[in-house]
Amino acid sequence: MTEPIVLGVDPGSHRLGYGVVYRKGSRYHHVAHGGVRAPSDAQLPERLRVIAEGLERAIALHAPVVVAIEQAFFHRDAHAALVIGHARGVAMLMAARAGVTVVEYPPTLVKRTVVGSGRADKAQVGAMVRAVLGLPDTPAEDAADALAIALCHAMTAPFLAATARRG
Amino acid sequence: MTEPIVLGVDPGSHRLGYGVVYRKGSRYHHVAHGGVRAPSDAQLPERLRVIAEGLERAIALHAPVVVAIEQAFFHRDAHAALVIGHARGVAMLMAARAGVTVVEYPPTLVKRTVVGSGRADKAQVGAMVRAVLGLPDTPAEDAADALAIALCHAMTAPFLAATARRG
Repeated sequence: MTEPIVLGVDPGSHRLGYGVVYRKGSRYHHVAHGGVRAPSDAQLPERLRVIAEGLERAIALHAPVVVAIEQAFFHRDAHAALVIGHARGVAMLMAARAGVTVVEYPPTLVKRTVVGSGRADKAQVGAMVRAVLGLPDTPAEDAADALAIALCHAMTAPFLAATARRG
Repeated sequence: MTEPIVLGVDPGSHRLGYGVVYRKGSRYHHVAHGGVRAPSDAQLPERLRVIAEGLERAIALHAPVVVAIEQAFFHRDAHAALVIGHARGVAMLMAARAGVTVVEYPPTLVKRTVVGSGRADKAQVGAMVRAVLGLPDTPAEDAADALAIALCHAMTAPFLAATARRG
């Protein structure tokens, strides 16, 4: 396979979802998806360690050219922003350590690109990810979100098509 | 040296300060302090990579038993919380990957313990860190903060004294 691989990630401090896709011509193909779950009774540093290790393995296994992640916006809840920041920082770090470019997309753009509406709900995102990638089942929520982010990049980044043609 | 080493860290997404101390009997000793500066024009993932690498080196060099970090509190500014969360997550991760325990202290406790007042300003913290550790100069602000956090742990954690007696 010579098409550039995109790894989408939905980072959380208890669980990280990831999804791996590539584009060939006008079609989008599923490579893998999954979730890394940290021990729920572990302290934050240990949870981050488990999540980082899982993402490190996924990056090593699938060798993506890009790690795609949702931009985070918080208007009110500073504590939630702080916690999600820890997990995002760890995800970005593991990508950078592997020498992989990180791209960010606003959640509304992801939904608009994949589902057609920036206000799509989780169920719509999951159903569309399943349909576009021809999956037998709808993936778990965080893996579906990660696949949607990866698809958003594959659908919008023009360099991917250009790179794929060389393959 | 058999006294347990404490490494304090003041994480930021552009610059990380660290400070290394130990307690022997009733005295506190300076081992090292410094700052890791990320290229200011680099993207966040690359800045986090540089900062993580610097902290990884400091941990490997000084072999602390504890990494001490300030608890972060944000009441209003969710964006600032998100950004500082990235850097804190990376610092916690590097400690966890090295198998080092992470402890957190509220900023007011750090100031009260080291300076005697929870409302001490940066200059007072720097001056007291310099005095307690017998430094020739006041360290740069983020290194001084990191030394203060390390001192807070050395001054308050009873197990350190117990461990030191065995040394």
